[in-house]
Amino acid sequence: MGLTIGVDVGGTKIAAGVVDENGSIVAKLRRSTPAASPERTAVVIGDAVIELLERYEAEAVGIGAAGFVDETRSMVLFAPNLAWRDEPVKKQVEERVGLPVFVENDANAAAWAEATLGAARGHDHVMLIAVGTGIGAGIVIGGELYRGGWGAAGEPGHYRVVPDGRPCGCGNRGCWEQYASGNALVFEARELARQSPGAAARMLELGGGIPDGISGPGITQAAREGDSGALRCFEIVGRWLGEGLADLTAILDPACFVIGGGVSDAGDLLLSPALEAYESGLSGRHYRRPARIRLAELGSDAGLIGAADLARRR
Amino acid sequence: MGLTIGVDVGGTKIAAGVVDENGSIVAKLRRSTPAASPERTAVVIGDAVIELLERYEAEAVGIGAAGFVDETRSMVLFAPNLAWRDEPVKKQVEERVGLPVFVENDANAAAWAEATLGAARGHDHVMLIAVGTGIGAGIVIGGELYRGGWGAAGEPGHYRVVPDGRPCGCGNRGCWEQYASGNALVFEARELARQSPGAAARMLELGGGIPDGISGPGITQAAREGDSGALRCFEIVGRWLGEGLADLTAILDPACFVIGGGVSDAGDLLLSPALEAYESGLSGRHYRRPARIRLAELGSDAGLIGAADLARRR
Repeated sequence: MGLTIGVDVGGTKIAAGVVDENGSIVAKLRRSTPAASPERTAVVIGDAVIELLERYEAEAVGIGAAGFVDETRSMVLFAPNLAWRDEPVKKQVEERVGLPVFVENDANAAAWAEATLGAARGHDHVMLIAVGTGIGAGIVIGGELYRGGWGAAGEPGHYRVVPDGRPCGCGNRGCWEQYASGNALVFEARELARQSPGAAARMLELGGGIPDGISGPGITQAAREGDSGALRCFEIVGRWLGEGLADLTAILDPACFVIGGGVSDAGDLLLSPALEAYESGLSGRHYRRPARIRLAELGSDAGLIGAADLARRR
Repeated sequence: MGLTIGVDVGGTKIAAGVVDENGSIVAKLRRSTPAASPERTAVVIGDAVIELLERYEAEAVGIGAAGFVDETRSMVLFAPNLAWRDEPVKKQVEERVGLPVFVENDANAAAWAEATLGAARGHDHVMLIAVGTGIGAGIVIGGELYRGGWGAAGEPGHYRVVPDGRPCGCGNRGCWEQYASGNALVFEARELARQSPGAAARMLELGGGIPDGISGPGITQAAREGDSGALRCFEIVGRWLGEGLADLTAILDPACFVIGGGVSDAGDLLLSPALEAYESGLSGRHYRRPARIRLAELGSDAGLIGAADLARRR
């Protein structure tokens, strides 16, 4: 028994998969997201689910989407990379597929998957920090997904680390995700290339010769080759990451942080400076246990697996 | 039925009280804290409890103390204002009084009291921010006190709001409590008095004519009289407070903040600038519900009442 379908809705791609009760994906397909049209997005999700249902029997559907989801897990109130505004996603997809549908923030779904089936299994208090273009996050407390008083918990990417700091897409300045994300990594590398082209020679070469051509994968490649300029960028961004984890520990004292997202593919390049900054930044560090800090295990499937598992548990 | 004893252990005073199941204090007494001697502190606590037990029958004893308390609620691992280091407080007091004893961080106990019997009753996700000399805090999640993975949650006073900022007693720099506490208020007033004595004339007068004589109560008094220098100090500290609450909302999305501690006696002097900064600092503010922000209702008895209630529920 016990197959459910998980759907991960991103700004460019929709991934849908049939997941068993151990979190294994037994079938998966991908579609492009018609991000500009809310209705078309729901149709594409529904069609992908129906296609999977032709081959597998499933009990329920879980949808993970980047955005604020309402308390009843039915509506997406606001999705920065989709046209969804107060969109009744649950109802739209249920009408199409004839199964119960549950909507969840994508980082919450990924956190749930990592806490129950991935890098943090065995821990009751877990925080996923997904370092991608920005920072996504999800919080598991007492073995339950924590959604907050109004359903909007788990956005530490937008706590302020620098007063009057770099402008953020959220409208504020100095948000953590402007310093400890993939965007921040690219920012540091391009700045270095503008200020000291010699120190960024390898990254410039990989980026077609101009600072604005430097991208995340190029920085990671250069750092893996041992390029000191690229390593310096990871050092800076990793330090901001670790200092933020120390702040979150002062507030929440999680037993385990899981570091996921695309930038975490760089592994120790990011994690080593983060761990060092975490340890030296932890308040009361001589009198408390630090959190474990682990790389995510489920990769880009975490959101899909988590959404499917949450749908099963409803 | 149902009397328990709550004990609030501060750096200078110990307050012990008999509390009924509605949170009402039916008897209370105070003793000086022999803070330099861990053993003597436990003896004074035990004697105060025994004195109350001569007049009232109680089921259990809850002790709230400023410091890190271990996961089993038995030991105080570290108390900044007491000599307690890995002190087996539960055992010491149980041996003396012959009742079950439970130890809790004092701000946790106060948060519990405010969430269940005070300003935030009716809310499941609550954060108490006690603005005193520093910032104490306690978190209630899903109607339960949240202690974190290792028992040390709820120290947002030591998250960093300014990189390389003001030095903090915890050993780090730029901690929130250096900007949004009673100490910060005094810091701002004395700075003003040094830089622009004319603008701080009334506060200087109340402080005996020298900047270092200016104290919290003097600043509050001057502000209540409408003194613009004192109002400016509350404006600055209140803004830092509100900006921090916005950060905590991005992370935790509590339904309700309770603002307690001695500085909160200043009421709107502190709360008005805090509310304004909170609203403008909230990330995603057009798409989410803000937390309620309320002044504490139980005053300086909150820790004692909360400790007694937690002992009852064990």
